Amino acid sequence: MPDANALHDRIASNADRDLNDLLNLLRIPSVSTDPSRTSAMRETVDYLSRDLQAAGFQTSVWETGGHPALFAERTIDASKPTVLVYGHYDVQPADPLELWDSDPFDPQIVDGRIVARGASDDKGQVYAHVKAVLALHEATGTLPCNVKFLIEGEEEIGSPNLGATVEAHGKDLQSDVVLISDGAMLPGPTPTLTYGLRGLAYLEVRVTTADRDLHSGAYGGAAPNPIQALAEMIAGLKDDQGRITVPAFYDHVRELGDDERTQLERVPFDADAFQNDAGLTATPGEPGYSVLERLWARPTLDVNGIGGGFQGEGSKTVIPNTAFAKISCRLVPDQDPAAIANALEAHLKRVAPHNANVEVLQHAHGRWALSPLDGDGMTAATQAIRAVDGVDPVYVRTGGSIPVVADFQRLLGSDVVLLDMGLESDRIHSPNETFDVALYHRGIRVSAEFFRAIGQGG
Amino acid sequence: MPDANALHDRIASNADRDLNDLLNLLRIPSVSTDPSRTSAMRETVDYLSRDLQAAGFQTSVWETGGHPALFAERTIDASKPTVLVYGHYDVQPADPLELWDSDPFDPQIVDGRIVARGASDDKGQVYAHVKAVLALHEATGTLPCNVKFLIEGEEEIGSPNLGATVEAHGKDLQSDVVLISDGAMLPGPTPTLTYGLRGLAYLEVRVTTADRDLHSGAYGGAAPNPIQALAEMIAGLKDDQGRITVPAFYDHVRELGDDERTQLERVPFDADAFQNDAGLTATPGEPGYSVLERLWARPTLDVNGIGGGFQGEGSKTVIPNTAFAKISCRLVPDQDPAAIANALEAHLKRVAPHNANVEVLQHAHGRWALSPLDGDGMTAATQAIRAVDGVDPVYVRTGGSIPVVADFQRLLGSDVVLLDMGLESDRIHSPNETFDVALYHRGIRVSAEFFRAIGQGG
Repeated sequence: MPDANALHDRIASNADRDLNDLLNLLRIPSVSTDPSRTSAMRETVDYLSRDLQAAGFQTSVWETGGHPALFAERTIDASKPTVLVYGHYDVQPADPLELWDSDPFDPQIVDGRIVARGASDDKGQVYAHVKAVLALHEATGTLPCNVKFLIEGEEEIGSPNLGATVEAHGKDLQSDVVLISDGAMLPGPTPTLTYGLRGLAYLEVRVTTADRDLHSGAYGGAAPNPIQALAEMIAGLKDDQGRITVPAFYDHVRELGDDERTQLERVPFDADAFQNDAGLTATPGEPGYSVLERLWARPTLDVNGIGGGFQGEGSKTVIPNTAFAKISCRLVPDQDPAAIANALEAHLKRVAPHNANVEVLQHAHGRWALSPLDGDGMTAATQAIRAVDGVDPVYVRTGGSIPVVADFQRLLGSDVVLLDMGLESDRIHSPNETFDVALYHRGIRVSAEFFRAIGQGG
Repeated sequence: MPDANALHDRIASNADRDLNDLLNLLRIPSVSTDPSRTSAMRETVDYLSRDLQAAGFQTSVWETGGHPALFAERTIDASKPTVLVYGHYDVQPADPLELWDSDPFDPQIVDGRIVARGASDDKGQVYAHVKAVLALHEATGTLPCNVKFLIEGEEEIGSPNLGATVEAHGKDLQSDVVLISDGAMLPGPTPTLTYGLRGLAYLEVRVTTADRDLHSGAYGGAAPNPIQALAEMIAGLKDDQGRITVPAFYDHVRELGDDERTQLERVPFDADAFQNDAGLTATPGEPGYSVLERLWARPTLDVNGIGGGFQGEGSKTVIPNTAFAKISCRLVPDQDPAAIANALEAHLKRVAPHNANVEVLQHAHGRWALSPLDGDGMTAATQAIRAVDGVDPVYVRTGGSIPVVADFQRLLGSDVVLLDMGLESDRIHSPNETFDVALYHRGIRVSAEFFRAIGQGG
């Protein structure tokens, strides 16, 4: 084992190479929702495979029903603990393109931050782990523990094939701890470990009222309007206080205990900064809960997109025949994603006007997750943060969803550690996504220290 | 003057030429709302100019703030009455293109109907008048009365410059009767003269709640959603009976008298055919009025388009920062379009949530119109229909808007005749717009007879 200083010197001397290699990775437009990007997905897998092979790993490309997953493993000593690093190489669509200051797939460094789609979510974060095992390998010719990687290509479309992949490859994925970096630490930056994630239910509803678009002069006054119908259906999904009206929606929501409420109050959350950073004039939501409680521990319903009729410039006097909306819910313990999606679908069909045809398409669901704070993984992560940052981490929940966390807990029985490297201000899923260069290099060091702590503790 | 038979023989012998010339006119994609079609607009004006020059007319291109208008005149005898034919050479956008069975700008003849954007609205109808004066000129070397044409290029975008044009060229446009063919006769086909048109107020509303799109996991539960806000605003524009809730909206609506209600009941309107033709399962609307009353004599509010957030395939977990809708009202006597637009704008701003920024853009307004049934123009049109069709016309109102009709009545003091040549089943403003070939040729004959009747009566 190298001592900590030698390892950190090695990482520091590779800083330029590690940064340039990340920029090259970000140049590959691996947008999983875009059918025209199939070859970019393969290219990204090849790129990551070469890095992991250089660190002494054996790699495999696992085909799925959709984009392939990359699996890599290096076993040092069967008596040592095994860490499985999970991440995703796919990214969100970059649109609306016109709101980017630079090409989303031509990374720029502006004010110490890498600007590119996927910089923080999740290429930059998963790649820090790749560079950490490479540094350990280069410094010592070995690793402090056994390490596996599973880097999938469908996280941004809800990981539709990952559950089946984890189930089919349960033996390959056997591990003591699953390590995931796909989130934001608290501002400061404050070293953060996440112990809770929300789940997701996502569906699409289409309302159709006629065979074809109609002239608003010839038909206006006697033809149903699908946009009006859809607007009424959406408006009715919340009451005037912001509570979701879908029957049974809140039935299985686990209320926060006094302990967790107290812990949440200790989190250094700046509600003004949260509001101002996004240009919000208010932070409305379910009454009776703080902003942080609403973000981390309460379920939500948001319309993610809507479209119908004439959207071009100018005016067109048409009554469209169809309109659609994409609607999703963030879910919390102990809501069941499939049950919520079914309840929402049934509710939408029930409240639709009789003169409208309603079709609902359910996209992928994802389970919420909660991890134990006293497990081996969380303990090693705490040690790694102390070693690199010189402080104890803050333990938080987060509003986002990583459906696979629940799958790992359920199917592998592994301890799951969420070691966030990004920042809320990284603008993930938005134009001008960023990742702080210093936090990328810090992430490599924390990752290497984590593997050392696991190796020593196992 | 030719006798009626000689004129009709002349028209019949030109049938193939007249049809082919219309097909060529329809090949020019004169979409007024599309900035890339500027040269097609000029090309259409040139095409029509050549035809009118061949009929002995002097032509002028009148520049406006937008697309040019074509003016043409031929004065035979200053003591004879003058007819001003008004029409428009611009067409609606053809989208959604994928719903057309053939290229909208490559006319096909299917089951005796021309299939092309603009076939009925309004190129085919205005061109029938052009071919009528050409037939009269070819048969006699002269015309039975003085005739002028004003063919504009901005009707489908609300004729924003036509009021100013009519005002500026009031002397050129001096006429006894304005003749317009831009509508649908009753099914049968039943020869129809329209004496009433609705007006229009059209606006666009944009709701913005943040500086940028937000991640629905990181912000869901504490960020306002502009689609939700817009849906609530739209839903509130009508009560649960379908009545429009904008304050003062109905204040100046002239209720139908018993006479007109009786007359409406005599119109051979097939409500089932109306419903089935468009694939509607119901004809909902304002309670207390028949379908025909709601279509012709009651004001409406329809959302013509809506857009916001992610509309691509699949799912994107975004809270968008902005959403918009296009909303228009059809108006009736004695509503003032500007006042209604202002009331709707003020109402939308008033009902918007406090955390949303609301911008409203008013598109062009148009006035409703009602014409006297006993004027010289309507009398001559009745005679022309008797001569060609052998029956009396049915007198109707229509739900559509031709804002210039009100301008002609107000600014020129002319009698306005609406001689509809199309059918409701022409699918104007929709994919696969059509115009019946036989009704096109019939239109040429009725137009020629109208000029004869005016010349004899003047």
